[in-house]
Amino acid sequence: MITAEFHRRGRDAILVPIHVRPEDFATLVPQLKRIANLDGLVFTIPYKQLACAHADALGPQARIVGAINALARRADGRWVGEIFDGIGCVEAFRRAGHSLRGRGVMLIGAGGAGSAIGVAVAREHPRRMRLFDIEAARSEALGAKIARVDPAIEVEWTEPDLAGIDILINASPVGMLEDPRLPIEVERIPPEIVVFDAIVKPEPTRLLELAARCGCPTVRGREMMHGQIGKVVDFFAGEEPAG
Amino acid sequence: MITAEFHRRGRDAILVPIHVRPEDFATLVPQLKRIANLDGLVFTIPYKQLACAHADALGPQARIVGAINALARRADGRWVGEIFDGIGCVEAFRRAGHSLRGRGVMLIGAGGAGSAIGVAVAREHPRRMRLFDIEAARSEALGAKIARVDPAIEVEWTEPDLAGIDILINASPVGMLEDPRLPIEVERIPPEIVVFDAIVKPEPTRLLELAARCGCPTVRGREMMHGQIGKVVDFFAGEEPAG
Repeated sequence: MITAEFHRRGRDAILVPIHVRPEDFATLVPQLKRIANLDGLVFTIPYKQLACAHADALGPQARIVGAINALARRADGRWVGEIFDGIGCVEAFRRAGHSLRGRGVMLIGAGGAGSAIGVAVAREHPRRMRLFDIEAARSEALGAKIARVDPAIEVEWTEPDLAGIDILINASPVGMLEDPRLPIEVERIPPEIVVFDAIVKPEPTRLLELAARCGCPTVRGREMMHGQIGKVVDFFAGEEPAG
Repeated sequence: MITAEFHRRGRDAILVPIHVRPEDFATLVPQLKRIANLDGLVFTIPYKQLACAHADALGPQARIVGAINALARRADGRWVGEIFDGIGCVEAFRRAGHSLRGRGVMLIGAGGAGSAIGVAVAREHPRRMRLFDIEAARSEALGAKIARVDPAIEVEWTEPDLAGIDILINASPVGMLEDPRLPIEVERIPPEIVVFDAIVKPEPTRLLELAARCGCPTVRGREMMHGQIGKVVDFFAGEEPAG
């Protein structure tokens, strides 16, 4: 998808998969950065946190999340890192016409993807963010990050609960692939709630199926991916992440 | 061309250009070899000699030439190097239906390409190989390599001269790009001589233009490139170079 976006913009560039073993990461990445015609790297699990060490500077979301998924060489030779997972989610909401400003958001999952989404959503200034993760320490850490972005947001920590919520976001792995569970134990979802699921497979997830049956607007994980592509390519083209 | 050949064979593989600076070569190549989904490397000028140090074993032509242009990971994790420049030239002659066995060959240029071509041609057992390079030491060194391949070949060192010659090979840079010179000072070439020029640009070279005007069969540098592609892809697919 990134290669296709490069070509759409007339850029002679390609993204190729590089399989790096954990024991090689620390020594291999600095050497990749020395390749004269390699101007960007994309990182995925489990390297998003470790990759920060290879950036000379971090974008505003990466600084708070503590992880990057893109690293770009600038004209002066410095490497800048940023995380676009959450930016992609926010972009998907924007493209679908759903504002986050002033809304009540229930966010399930505060791992890598959940943290990135939580920070990016916080930058849109919702009224309330209710956080849940099966590891309480993770949702507490995410709450602290959200407070750094916008101290005015009411942060709550509860079991998944839709009271006073306008937007439900699943960033947990519950419902992925063969997992038949819902990330929230409900029979139905009020039809005014916008439901987003970061999971790409299956498509739709059981959560999004339930939401659709209830008449809720939905945003799919695939739309987050699409939302992220253009932003990552902007970043590789030299655009600095909004501060 | 290599990527196209991979795809033609139904192989999910791609060749991408990697620009490595001279000061980085020794440290970068060992790290590239640690990439788990990178199973082959192609080297070009000025790295064909230096690259030998990164091979665990050398093919029969590389052992004599002292240079490689392809390095392949084998199933047991060992990296095998071979040079295909000369193999491509011989393959181009074979495809064009011109035998080298028992013939008289005039080879102009004994640098990297010339050495590889000289060794590959020698393996076809011509009767005579007449060598010329503006640096006499290079054509002398090539003569020694040819003798290692087949001591029965009559090796001569002279200025470019077509007496008793059936096949004229230019592997020197004379005539490349804007260079208007011919690699051999002749007004015409006897029409029974097969003329090959390793130079790809311009196409045809002035030498090949002259040969065509004289009615000589010609083999182009592009045909050497084509001849090399299939052999390199065979090598990456696990085929060992003929001993």
